[in-house]
Amino acid sequence: MSSIAGFRFAATSANIKKNGAPDLALAVADAPATAAAVFTRNIVRAAPVEIAAERVKSGLVRAVLVNSGNANACTGQPGVEATLRSTRAIAEALGIPESQIFPASTGVIGQVLPAERIEEHAPELCAALVPENSEAFANAIRTTDRWSKMARASVETAWGPASLLGIGKGAGMIHPNLGELGQRVSSGPPHATMLAFLFTDAKVEQAALQQALNRAVDLTFNACSVDGDTSTNDTVLALASGASGHQASAEQMEAALIEVCRELARSMVLDGEGAEHAVDIVVRGLQSEDDARKVARTVATSMLVKTALFGKDANWGRLLAAAGRAEVPFDPAQASVYIGDELIVHKGLPVGAEAEAHAAVIMQEKHYTIELVLGEGEGRFSYLTCDIGHGYVDVNAGYRS
Amino acid sequence: MSSIAGFRFAATSANIKKNGAPDLALAVADAPATAAAVFTRNIVRAAPVEIAAERVKSGLVRAVLVNSGNANACTGQPGVEATLRSTRAIAEALGIPESQIFPASTGVIGQVLPAERIEEHAPELCAALVPENSEAFANAIRTTDRWSKMARASVETAWGPASLLGIGKGAGMIHPNLGELGQRVSSGPPHATMLAFLFTDAKVEQAALQQALNRAVDLTFNACSVDGDTSTNDTVLALASGASGHQASAEQMEAALIEVCRELARSMVLDGEGAEHAVDIVVRGLQSEDDARKVARTVATSMLVKTALFGKDANWGRLLAAAGRAEVPFDPAQASVYIGDELIVHKGLPVGAEAEAHAAVIMQEKHYTIELVLGEGEGRFSYLTCDIGHGYVDVNAGYRS
Repeated sequence: MSSIAGFRFAATSANIKKNGAPDLALAVADAPATAAAVFTRNIVRAAPVEIAAERVKSGLVRAVLVNSGNANACTGQPGVEATLRSTRAIAEALGIPESQIFPASTGVIGQVLPAERIEEHAPELCAALVPENSEAFANAIRTTDRWSKMARASVETAWGPASLLGIGKGAGMIHPNLGELGQRVSSGPPHATMLAFLFTDAKVEQAALQQALNRAVDLTFNACSVDGDTSTNDTVLALASGASGHQASAEQMEAALIEVCRELARSMVLDGEGAEHAVDIVVRGLQSEDDARKVARTVATSMLVKTALFGKDANWGRLLAAAGRAEVPFDPAQASVYIGDELIVHKGLPVGAEAEAHAAVIMQEKHYTIELVLGEGEGRFSYLTCDIGHGYVDVNAGYRS
Repeated sequence: MSSIAGFRFAATSANIKKNGAPDLALAVADAPATAAAVFTRNIVRAAPVEIAAERVKSGLVRAVLVNSGNANACTGQPGVEATLRSTRAIAEALGIPESQIFPASTGVIGQVLPAERIEEHAPELCAALVPENSEAFANAIRTTDRWSKMARASVETAWGPASLLGIGKGAGMIHPNLGELGQRVSSGPPHATMLAFLFTDAKVEQAALQQALNRAVDLTFNACSVDGDTSTNDTVLALASGASGHQASAEQMEAALIEVCRELARSMVLDGEGAEHAVDIVVRGLQSEDDARKVARTVATSMLVKTALFGKDANWGRLLAAAGRAEVPFDPAQASVYIGDELIVHKGLPVGAEAEAHAAVIMQEKHYTIELVLGEGEGRFSYLTCDIGHGYVDVNAGYRS
């Protein structure tokens, strides 16, 4: 899992987190890498998001500097200065231009990033860079994450195989709504801090990489939710070193990115604060993918649905009631609902207590599917959600994020 | 509190609830009353909603029959038959036309209303009708409500005073999005079972009553949320007996309706399953009331905000992050946030630890205000919400609603 040609990784504890856990991570490409990124569409954006978005416009990134424990969001001009000082310290230690360093932060909102601690640890961090250190990178970017998140896929190019390594973090404030800054999508209201860094040794044109990333994010991170809250810091960055020597098309990159992003999204949702189940809400039979996405998102973010998932209650009434408030027309009398492969509602009416008892058994599984068939149309969308229970309340009634 | 000229009330236990608590309520006007109603905009609508919406079109209602313990939603044609049988039983006992009886139901979804129990209890229910029984009516329409909900206001007409008595219920699945059926509002996605019945002895034209009701509901029930889930059964009915002999204008009715509906909404939100605080989220300084409503609603329904309210944490970062995902433009660097009268964010930056400590004290109160000032515009909206904590999870992970 650990290495990907053309990149080196390092991590350390810079005392940004109060508990002394690793909180500073660095990835460096051997040469400037082709870069594509998407960022939160929240209009309240952290300082590192603003700076990273500006720098990535060049299409080239040499290094990624990520800290956990402090989001450096809502910190005004002092926050901007702190991010600039941090990347300047790394640039000096590496002897590369500051503009090629892509910053990202996650953690507490409203406190200025303590740049002096990053300056202090920059030399040791840069000295620790080795190809095998990606797991330490993944560990250091965690906040409330119970585990670190990595995924790998091969990129099937016409010239032979290349590799894609994904590293992510995210557990709360997860409802990504990512896009290139300045863009707007038609298909949804905004939606958490999740970060993902996607490293490939394929050669890819910048435009192809961006196109592939946009589509992959739309089907994965933008189709998952823990709590419906979109963060100020969400960032996904794809970097291509080209070190494999194999050129990949947008389609080839897209397939690999979808695979890796889906695995990272599933890991984030399963790690949803206090969550015990990851549930794919599949909606089909509507007029369009957009309609299906709206209904799936409404069901996936319904508190009554999420508490029913926590309670392992095959509460199809809540599922239909949530679907019915998505502002998408369908005929409730034609609606069917499956939990796993168990049909519990047929043409708007409950199948019966036995079916619901079977469904309740399926709902004990760690990962299962709920499918709402709402008509005869071709529109289909799958949205990943989790249950919400006491663990979520415990984490969020106390944690200052 | 208990009586209002021109109406009589009764309640009984018809064994619709398993625990034998009162679950059947009846209000009867001495003569057909002028009627206006709004219903849930969820497209999954219970049988009684469909029937009530059809019957109220005549502008006249003689009797209101409400059961708790069973929503008769998602019950198809058998559900429709059950509601028709119920109102027929009352019509026969009262000797009035079936079409003048307005049905409403609240409770479990997906089970056909046991009409035979209502038929069995119809004679005793009708025999119990007296003007003083409104509190028994209020008690019998409760589901998970911890207390019954009544409010009263005077209607200041040009001819002298009249009265308005409101009776409501609602604690979970509260995010009303009410309108005349077939209508659409511009200002929002859908939003719980709440029921409210508003009885006045003023004389009001039907069109004036409907107009006053629409506006009052928009500013009160449609501006409150417990969990963001809009019910299949939400119904608000206003009935004017005219027994005071005093004619009220739309504006005069509106003022009284706003007062009563606001008090009922506050009582519902304070009764939010497990809630300990009712919080007015006031957003001002935006371009329009609609923009302010969108931001206020997004903040009011944010899980991270609601768990912070539960934790009594003056977490302004979550407040701003939620505001920032409402798809309404504002400059975060100009945003100010007050908790009660304590300024905790000034021009996008935290005021400091002392201010937050003061705010945390205010957040122990049962009812307080959070105000976000997001610019210089005239647009202002106030949205009522509550905290979400362990109580909500307990109620909803078990209760089959």
